[in-house]
Amino acid sequence: MNTELRAFLDRVRPAIDATLGELLPPETQPPLRLHQAMRYSTMDGGKRIRPALCIAAFSAYKQDWKPILPVAAAIEMIHSYSLIHDDLPAMDDDDFRRGRPSCHKQFDEAIAILAGDALLTLAFEVLALSKLVPPERMLRVLSVLAKAAGSPAGMIAGQVLDLEGEGHPVTGEQLKAIHRSKTGALIGAAVWIGAYLGEASESDLTSIQKYCDRIGLAFQVIDDILDATDGENRDEGKATYPALYGLAESRTIARGLMSEARQAVQPLGSRGELLMAFCDYLEERTS
Amino acid sequence: MNTELRAFLDRVRPAIDATLGELLPPETQPPLRLHQAMRYSTMDGGKRIRPALCIAAFSAYKQDWKPILPVAAAIEMIHSYSLIHDDLPAMDDDDFRRGRPSCHKQFDEAIAILAGDALLTLAFEVLALSKLVPPERMLRVLSVLAKAAGSPAGMIAGQVLDLEGEGHPVTGEQLKAIHRSKTGALIGAAVWIGAYLGEASESDLTSIQKYCDRIGLAFQVIDDILDATDGENRDEGKATYPALYGLAESRTIARGLMSEARQAVQPLGSRGELLMAFCDYLEERTS
Repeated sequence: MNTELRAFLDRVRPAIDATLGELLPPETQPPLRLHQAMRYSTMDGGKRIRPALCIAAFSAYKQDWKPILPVAAAIEMIHSYSLIHDDLPAMDDDDFRRGRPSCHKQFDEAIAILAGDALLTLAFEVLALSKLVPPERMLRVLSVLAKAAGSPAGMIAGQVLDLEGEGHPVTGEQLKAIHRSKTGALIGAAVWIGAYLGEASESDLTSIQKYCDRIGLAFQVIDDILDATDGENRDEGKATYPALYGLAESRTIARGLMSEARQAVQPLGSRGELLMAFCDYLEERTS
Repeated sequence: MNTELRAFLDRVRPAIDATLGELLPPETQPPLRLHQAMRYSTMDGGKRIRPALCIAAFSAYKQDWKPILPVAAAIEMIHSYSLIHDDLPAMDDDDFRRGRPSCHKQFDEAIAILAGDALLTLAFEVLALSKLVPPERMLRVLSVLAKAAGSPAGMIAGQVLDLEGEGHPVTGEQLKAIHRSKTGALIGAAVWIGAYLGEASESDLTSIQKYCDRIGLAFQVIDDILDATDGENRDEGKATYPALYGLAESRTIARGLMSEARQAVQPLGSRGELLMAFCDYLEERTS
């Protein structure tokens, strides 16, 4: 990994974890099991890719990135909630997540459903309470994030399309649409929100919008490749890039998308360096 | 029912339904089943008590109440999401809701979980996009609503406490805390938000805060009484007022709370009339 990115991640990850720790309700406050479950599934050693991307985009424009931490943490809460609900028996039915029992196995299904609901709700509360930027800009961030997390354009739509696609043949266009909404929308929103809150120019935001689109899709293609090669068969019966195109072609597609993402932020000059390094970092995961 | 309130409800209910119809994703837009489920559980002939209370409080201060409709509809979306998730097998496991199959029976569990998630997300998106009041006031509304819907102070906490209380003896204080958070918080927030967006004075907001507290708790006590007398045993094993105090005493408690609610808005003079009429209306449900 690029040493600049390495140093950046080493700085921001502990800060993201600390911010989450401050924002989540204490485990000692009732209802105890709910708050324990919220923390169990959020403070789990995740790679914090979404909040780190958000901070990277922000820090391209502002030297002091600490003020954006609550926003970045809120985005991670939405990611955590989505994993809790995705793992439920009625959905992907996964007993494990990152080598530990998934939330509904560690607690129970009711607590897992409600912990997810509470994380989603808390994310919006955190944004509404943020004093980082003028209120009209924060409302814009809220609406962008809600759209990226919801339906028809966001993560929830993608999860439904993904579940509906199971066991059915899908076309390349359909698969792209599933991945864009299921994973790409939230990743893209994380980057865009960081740049927007950093007060990037309209022209930079247009470049970043294109970067968001490519890196968001590439991220899920790479996830598909990793799942196909780790021998765990989590994606059995699911529509994936390796299932549709084969592993080699999927790698080529991911590489092509990342190359387009890099090109998209070339006009940003040195401001785009960290975002470019993220492309390398995420791409290295496949090789 | 008071004729003024009757006329008010006859005007606002169709407007709330129409607004929900405009704000929810069309059933013809993919993912179809998700959007059908969101509409199925929201456009279901509900009494719209929360949005009607919100509009009533707003219209105490502003003649034209139409601009608050999206906010009122967003509050109803949060209520609908909570019912969908409460009905799930892992929670209250109810197959029916208002005489129709509950969402997970009509569709399936995955769709029900995701439809609830999407309604919650959409509610915040609608608020963030509202241009009704200056942005800083809308952010305040968002944070108040998120707090009332979340944990530890709101609806999700109440639902957990309610589930945990099943089959265990609870004290009167505990039961009050459960009901306050499970039902009272969102009802109270609906009223408070209406008055706040109507630009009620600080002194009126203080009166209304007390009204919110009493009517919110009374509402759930009355719900307990209705459930205890309708012969359906939905609340079997649950902590309820009739189970703890008996039916007659529960009715006395509800009446006392409603009387306190009426007193709380007495200082508002004619502005408080509709809110007072709501107390009668909700109380009549028990007799």
